Amino acid sequence: MATSGKVIRCRAAVAWAVGKPLSLEEVEVAPPKAREVRVKIVATGICRTDDHVIEGSFLDIDFPVIPGHEGAGIVESIGEGVTSVKPGDKVILFGLPQCGECCFCKNPDSNYCLKSHLSVSQCLLPDKTSRFTCRGKQIHHFLWISTFAEYTVVPEFTLAKIDAAAPLDKVCLLACGFSTGYGAAINTAKVKPGSTCAVFGLGGVGLSVVMGCKAAGASRIIGVDVNKEKFARAKELGATECISPRDFQKPVQEVLTEMTGYGVDYSFEVIGTADTMTAALASCNMNTGVCVVVGVLPTGSVVPIDPLLFLSGRTCKGTLIGGWKMRDSIPKLVSSYLEKKFNSDLLITHTLPFAKINEGFELLRAGKSIRTVLLY
Amino acid sequence: MATSGKVIRCRAAVAWAVGKPLSLEEVEVAPPKAREVRVKIVATGICRTDDHVIEGSFLDIDFPVIPGHEGAGIVESIGEGVTSVKPGDKVILFGLPQCGECCFCKNPDSNYCLKSHLSVSQCLLPDKTSRFTCRGKQIHHFLWISTFAEYTVVPEFTLAKIDAAAPLDKVCLLACGFSTGYGAAINTAKVKPGSTCAVFGLGGVGLSVVMGCKAAGASRIIGVDVNKEKFARAKELGATECISPRDFQKPVQEVLTEMTGYGVDYSFEVIGTADTMTAALASCNMNTGVCVVVGVLPTGSVVPIDPLLFLSGRTCKGTLIGGWKMRDSIPKLVSSYLEKKFNSDLLITHTLPFAKINEGFELLRAGKSIRTVLLY
Ligand SMILES: NC(=O)c1ccc[n+]([C@@H]2O[C@H](COP(=O)([O-])OP(=O)(O)OC[C@H]3O[C@@H](n4cnc5c(N)ncnc54)[C@H](O)[C@@H]3O)[C@@H](O)[C@H]2O)c1
Ligand SMILES: NC(=O)c1ccc[n+]([C@@H]2O[C@H](COP(=O)([O-])OP(=O)(O)OC[C@H]3O[C@@H](n4cnc5c(N)ncnc54)[C@H](O)[C@@H]3O)[C@@H](O)[C@H]2O)c1
Ligand SMILES: [Zn+2]
Ligand SMILES: [Zn+2]
Ligand SMILES: [Zn+2]
Ligand SMILES: [Zn+2]
Repeated sequence: MATSGKVIRCRAAVAWAVGKPLSLEEVEVAPPKAREVRVKIVATGICRTDDHVIEGSFLDIDFPVIPGHEGAGIVESIGEGVTSVKPGDKVILFGLPQCGECCFCKNPDSNYCLKSHLSVSQCLLPDKTSRFTCRGKQIHHFLWISTFAEYTVVPEFTLAKIDAAAPLDKVCLLACGFSTGYGAAINTAKVKPGSTCAVFGLGGVGLSVVMGCKAAGASRIIGVDVNKEKFARAKELGATECISPRDFQKPVQEVLTEMTGYGVDYSFEVIGTADTMTAALASCNMNTGVCVVVGVLPTGSVVPIDPLLFLSGRTCKGTLIGGWKMRDSIPKLVSSYLEKKFNSDLLITHTLPFAKINEGFELLRAGKSIRTVLLY
Repeated sequence: MATSGKVIRCRAAVAWAVGKPLSLEEVEVAPPKAREVRVKIVATGICRTDDHVIEGSFLDIDFPVIPGHEGAGIVESIGEGVTSVKPGDKVILFGLPQCGECCFCKNPDSNYCLKSHLSVSQCLLPDKTSRFTCRGKQIHHFLWISTFAEYTVVPEFTLAKIDAAAPLDKVCLLACGFSTGYGAAINTAKVKPGSTCAVFGLGGVGLSVVMGCKAAGASRIIGVDVNKEKFARAKELGATECISPRDFQKPVQEVLTEMTGYGVDYSFEVIGTADTMTAALASCNMNTGVCVVVGVLPTGSVVPIDPLLFLSGRTCKGTLIGGWKMRDSIPKLVSSYLEKKFNSDLLITHTLPFAKINEGFELLRAGKSIRTVLLY
């Protein structure tokens, strides 16, 4: 492309400091270095995790930073040694890399990568420099992908080429929200046919858990949310009933236990608070119950757990992006999307031009949206 | 037998009140009612759980009580409707019943039974009366089996007939300690060949975990105990190395993580403290690591857990008696014992006459014994 090898000036949403609204800026995006790819982002979803970053409750983020991690776009140019994509390819970027070389990447049972943000900071690219500047200042990357920029530079192992037929304004959700929730049910919990599930939190991720439970053949899927406006969509996607903890005097774990006899087979925490994590764990049955923690709690949180909940046999496990090895899985998930094996489009309640990004966050905070997709 | 249908006067060890040493008493043992069995106990092990009962840290125990739950004996007489055993049969009694009728018993994946002490008090027999009196007072049962009595009356579904060739003074450990630890490794964790394990606590149960890990083909088994006197036996049973947390300045989870690169594949908490539960969870690797909680923490304990430990994918699960459905499994475990598939005899460091029961507890508290077997 004409821009190849040159600095690109374009729009981006910069979080200058914790707690400040995103600021729409013109940024300079340097060309990709070796094993890096510069991508023109076409569409990006807004995930609650981005809001955690803006609030300062997500782990070890260096400011100023360009958030965003649910993006799809088109390769603009590639650095030396990049072999898996070429300019013009449609790609999805993801916040959990798959370097393919570390011991976790080589373990077929693991989707972790030692290059992920929980092991090394992804606020600068692997060579410890940034490709972004704004008003003369270096701006940090987020999870190496920073999709709230019209152009972004990412390591090759944080993206995957997808089918050219894929609609980017839809499949961008496969980068995080949909894949996380759907995978939490089918990969992490391995929900069995005929089982009973409870999903705490019916946002974009929680509703994807509902879809995953349904796809796995669960016979009863109970949605739990304080915002009853989420119930209609949840039922459309597979929830057999929905409850609000605010409608009961007793703790919701007791309500769920009574509704089901001895607790659900699988519970999912998809909110990110200590209270709902405790409640989700106590809601699954004492012996074979599995609680999957999806929500990201504020850094430094401590969850007080009653060890008796475990003694009787319960399982608690976490999930990173639904357990997918992302580079391997994203092209397949896109194919499944195109074959209509699931309908993640139903998560999209709003589509806004990129300039309205703060409006998108307001909709999320007000509980009015499931997923807002921003178009550049 | 000549005693059938009559009250039997015999010896028992009674815990009159929390914190008091066991008192050797003559007790009266009433004949079994319908669906109950009176058993002459031949041998019983001393498990740390009995000590928790004496200390008052085990859940919902009514005093005065006759503890003991690692017993083997011979059926003396049976109540109406008992079909699975007859007088003269060798049996093992167990603290986790298998009624065979509840929804958990009917679930092939569960070893829980709704008649277990976590669901209904087992301080009285199912008909809410006791078969024990002493000095004119009613004495409570413990887990329905109270093996610290020469004769005990138990519901039929808390025992299983075993091979007449089995040495009762050895296989009594299959009632709890051995089965719990061995099963925690092979049933609950499902340890894979070639994996790395850490076992926190090298008592009778922890050493049985070591045996289970070895039987499952683990290539590295790290024993962790503050009492280095336990290390020799642990190595004999399969531990490839042993460490004491007291030998390090840094937390033992960091030591284990450094020893193994990124943490073990499976960690087992077999002590029963909040600190070691936290340490065990943090010791297994961030993504595919599994921590199995075996230790029973004092009732009312709260374990502060860092939710980030789960976010990256870790699993924490508990085990009840190693995940065995006891009535189905005990006869098979005894057969395996007789076929020398494992050698649980190596757990027995002391054999004492029943009258020396308090000496047995002193050995346990002083860290001098693994398992003491008491003979009547
Ligand atoms: N583990 C991962 O890999 C991963 C990936 C993506 C997102 N996440 C996390 O998943 C969580 C959900 O993300 P999302 O985008 O769906 O968020 P969201 O804000 O859209 O949805 C959260 C839902 O929880 C509900 N809620 C809030 N407090 C509640 C309470 N006390 N009881 C019941 N319901 C309550 C809200 O009404 C909302 O519907 C976030 O914490 C996010 O950071 C984790
Ligand atoms: N889940 C179950 O079904 C089940 C069944 C049986 C026993 N248990 C529990 O398992 C636990 C172990 O039982 P046991 O009979 O083997 O007990 P034990 O007392 O023989 O062994 C405990 C070991 O832990 C060591 N230890 C104590 N504090 C330690 C620390 N801070 N760090 C490292 N090591 C430490 C001791 O030196 C000892 O060797 C108990 O809590 C018991 O109640 C559970
Ligand atoms: Zn996300
Ligand atoms: Zn990797
Ligand atoms: Zn025991
Ligand atoms: Zn039962």
